[in-house]
Amino acid sequence: MRIGSQTLKFPKPPSIIESASVVGKKEGLGPLKHTFDFISDDSYFGEKSWEKAESNMLKQCFSLACDKGKLSPSTLDMIFSGDLLNQCTGSAYALRDTDVPYFGLYGACSTMSESLCLAAMAIDGGCARTAAALTSSHFCSAERQFRFPLEYGSIRAPTAQWTVTGAGAVILGADGAGPYITHATMGKIVDAGIVDASNMGAAMAPAAHDTLSAHFADTGRAPHYYDAIVTGDLGVLGQDIVRDLFMDDGVELGPRYMDCGVLVYDIEAQDVHAGGSGCGCSASVLSGHLLRGMRNGVWKKILFAGTGALMSPTMTLQGESIPGICHAVAIESERC
Amino acid sequence: MRIGSQTLKFPKPPSIIESASVVGKKEGLGPLKHTFDFISDDSYFGEKSWEKAESNMLKQCFSLACDKGKLSPSTLDMIFSGDLLNQCTGSAYALRDTDVPYFGLYGACSTMSESLCLAAMAIDGGCARTAAALTSSHFCSAERQFRFPLEYGSIRAPTAQWTVTGAGAVILGADGAGPYITHATMGKIVDAGIVDASNMGAAMAPAAHDTLSAHFADTGRAPHYYDAIVTGDLGVLGQDIVRDLFMDDGVELGPRYMDCGVLVYDIEAQDVHAGGSGCGCSASVLSGHLLRGMRNGVWKKILFAGTGALMSPTMTLQGESIPGICHAVAIESERC
Repeated sequence: MRIGSQTLKFPKPPSIIESASVVGKKEGLGPLKHTFDFISDDSYFGEKSWEKAESNMLKQCFSLACDKGKLSPSTLDMIFSGDLLNQCTGSAYALRDTDVPYFGLYGACSTMSESLCLAAMAIDGGCARTAAALTSSHFCSAERQFRFPLEYGSIRAPTAQWTVTGAGAVILGADGAGPYITHATMGKIVDAGIVDASNMGAAMAPAAHDTLSAHFADTGRAPHYYDAIVTGDLGVLGQDIVRDLFMDDGVELGPRYMDCGVLVYDIEAQDVHAGGSGCGCSASVLSGHLLRGMRNGVWKKILFAGTGALMSPTMTLQGESIPGICHAVAIESERC
Repeated sequence: MRIGSQTLKFPKPPSIIESASVVGKKEGLGPLKHTFDFISDDSYFGEKSWEKAESNMLKQCFSLACDKGKLSPSTLDMIFSGDLLNQCTGSAYALRDTDVPYFGLYGACSTMSESLCLAAMAIDGGCARTAAALTSSHFCSAERQFRFPLEYGSIRAPTAQWTVTGAGAVILGADGAGPYITHATMGKIVDAGIVDASNMGAAMAPAAHDTLSAHFADTGRAPHYYDAIVTGDLGVLGQDIVRDLFMDDGVELGPRYMDCGVLVYDIEAQDVHAGGSGCGCSASVLSGHLLRGMRNGVWKKILFAGTGALMSPTMTLQGESIPGICHAVAIESERC
């Protein structure tokens, strides 16, 4: 059911049945190390290329989510997945043997929340009983595709973020004991004119502000309704911009506001400059830290807002600015 | 409402309110020239790069669909769009100023049918009153991204297809006089082991056979229920393979079976080898030829089955085979 301009309220909120996260070694050394299901010491995940590594990581993550939920993958009604690789091959190759209807997405780093929105819509609308939402990113495949091959040893800008090697998978069902996806606020594309591809946080922050503002307006909820408001992967700089934009509106987000790109690493000690990024950042933090926290009673109401930068290296080389997007889902312990 | 393993039957079938197609000069010289809304003599569509040209073409197409339907774009509830460019920038840049919730997709050349599936699900489920489904491809941007820059003057394989420079946009509504999307059969990924990226028809045909077979099984309909069964862009070779696969099942598809990649060009005279391809192929043929034919009473029941190859140049260079996918939608003049 649509409320306001961008928000869907689900009369029968889909339940999060299970989730899983798989990450690389660096992420496994960070502050959230105890929240991931599997930490791989092998950056190649047993494969011979970075692209195949990413695909295999996502495949492992999906299998793990199904195993944890005691679900046979083939019993799922549909899968929503995408990633950062050209033509989203991380997802297509990971899921080609699943024998489940597949919808490929491209939402850049907002893919975890985009896939959750669509999976929740499908279940709420009676088109599916169960659906999986997943995504991945890999530092090494992202570096050579978006920036330079690792072997170049390029110097990174201070505003640059570090692509998380990680995958997250969330399985939703029409039935279940929660937590529930009660609302989804669908993002519009917001282009604030940023042209620096090493400053993604600044490019995406206005989209996060736009979608979160729409969520509060559409639902009539104030930020303090939520125990945690977590943006996708804005990093340190983008997080500050979101705080500032809300301060300009007279809204103090306070400590309940966090960002997955800030949470996932020890920013100083792990030398990740402005923090984490990549589809796998918000996906692994949600599937691990946030949903574990909800299950353990740390939080009861979370607003999860994945953020993405919809540019390509080709478009930024052609002088284009970077369009951002943010989709948000409200995840609550109780049906409301 | 789900019926069978992969099919959704829409209790309140969404209506196709309007559609539009924009194509390039070559397509405007083909047999369907009178069915397109706009044929551009300028391959650059007024821009300075092929990528920006594609984006501008899609933007024009979307505007045209809204204009024809006397709709303000901002009144749409959501947009589903994607394309072949890395990071789907054709869509993101075309639609960044629309101020409408945006879901980015990657379904390769199946994007027109994928976007129609999801838009119909959203409307049927009560999440939207109106939604747009669109996509594009451009010969020149696709050649340099997937094969070689045009300036190389590469020799094309006889099995190769010609990427259509074209865009299609379809606007769906909860209300309207039809034609209606009555069913959607969601595709699974099917990988038949084809490794030749110059033979996409062969890579995608098994997916088309799989989804069409599921549609007939799930709905209990035989192929002759439809006046036309139209696959995405398999071209001459892929079309023959689909015919053969159905013949092996004892099913004769007959002349009601057509393929957008065969329809769009005069294959011999226009020297396009195995036929047309690209997201814009099925999108412009559906938005032009097929929907005009339905409005003019040529056909009353069409099964439209967009097909996509989910590989990237990187994965084929790494020796991987090409996963195919096909999503199908039943479009009927009457609600059934």
